[in-house]
Amino acid sequence: MINNQKVGAVIVAAGSGERMGGVDKMLAPLGGRTVLAWVVGVFQECPAIDEIAVVLGEHNIEAGQRLLAGFSKVIAVCRGGERRQDSVLAGINHLGGCRWLVIHDGARPLLTADLITDGLAAAAESGAAACAVPVTDTIKLAGDDDYVRETLSRKRLWAVQTPQVFRSDIITVAYRQAQAEFTDDASLVEKAGYRVKLYKGSYGNIKITTPAHLALAGVLLGERGG
Amino acid sequence: MINNQKVGAVIVAAGSGERMGGVDKMLAPLGGRTVLAWVVGVFQECPAIDEIAVVLGEHNIEAGQRLLAGFSKVIAVCRGGERRQDSVLAGINHLGGCRWLVIHDGARPLLTADLITDGLAAAAESGAAACAVPVTDTIKLAGDDDYVRETLSRKRLWAVQTPQVFRSDIITVAYRQAQAEFTDDASLVEKAGYRVKLYKGSYGNIKITTPAHLALAGVLLGERGG
Repeated sequence: MINNQKVGAVIVAAGSGERMGGVDKMLAPLGGRTVLAWVVGVFQECPAIDEIAVVLGEHNIEAGQRLLAGFSKVIAVCRGGERRQDSVLAGINHLGGCRWLVIHDGARPLLTADLITDGLAAAAESGAAACAVPVTDTIKLAGDDDYVRETLSRKRLWAVQTPQVFRSDIITVAYRQAQAEFTDDASLVEKAGYRVKLYKGSYGNIKITTPAHLALAGVLLGERGG
Repeated sequence: MINNQKVGAVIVAAGSGERMGGVDKMLAPLGGRTVLAWVVGVFQECPAIDEIAVVLGEHNIEAGQRLLAGFSKVIAVCRGGERRQDSVLAGINHLGGCRWLVIHDGARPLLTADLITDGLAAAAESGAAACAVPVTDTIKLAGDDDYVRETLSRKRLWAVQTPQVFRSDIITVAYRQAQAEFTDDASLVEKAGYRVKLYKGSYGNIKITTPAHLALAGVLLGERGG
């Protein structure tokens, strides 16, 4: 709850994980639990969150339901769709009574409860907020010939993460207008004409896409404990 | 040598490493050697490389000289300057006879010899090439108010790494014209009016800036062996 308005979370974990070399990243061990239990645990423990919908791939539904049975806020463990937006929508459809929706990528298990509450605070103004970190790489724009056209000024360039937080009416309108496939909910909301506020994420909030990322996540978790 | 032209390498490792929590990253252990020995070893083993200048911080000079005594191509272990460009220049000044200069960040020990030879091939056309990977994050441009102004199309956005390869006359002119402080040699060469070709780097060619990166580098090296 924030200001007596219900808050729901959609955890999207239905991707194929094709760069994981056959390891199912959501069920992979991390800090004594699975990646999935870790990420759902952060939402479960966050006082602002009322309900959680977890979207999984077909092959993970049964294992996911077993694993998440003990999490009282999880009201749905459902099957994802073909594209990412189909999966997010499947989750949103279970959270009808929520005024605010926190969308989070299941492959980012190192988020903290602060990133959720900071997102809710940031979204209060315009109804939409996305977690992001300043870009540290030098970014260049190249032509078809691979020659540099422009080196972008790093000032004001942000790499977007999740959580992303939206007022339910805004994300619903944005999704209704969505045409092409997309991988970033905030982009969709921008396209629908709404303003999205960026708030400070964490470089430690990594996305697990390869086995090396999984190892790194273990190291980062160990550092937190130490 | 490429086409009978001498090739020199500048390995820049004079940074303060302030995010390493007191660990000296160049002397930190990695895969049974130090990070410094690892990165210099790749250049030593690369047949295209004739001479190597290693630029270190004042505090590392003695240890570096001892550590690198066995590397036959290392012709100078010298002290870096205040800004990155001062350090690169200090190295270049030792490689006067070289037609081509390969500049590499000492904090990227996971480069391969292929990245060096690919860079020399890419630079043949315009005289300047930089290693880069397609950006995988969603990148947004924000205003002073932290609201998103634009989500950049990922198409044609590249995150630049090193090695970067330059014909010696080009990098010399570019450095002579350099005014402000900069962290990317290619940008400087672009500013001087030369064309820089991007060539495919590797996501595994990570830059070690935190202890977690060092742990990740160990994991990635282990994977290579396996």
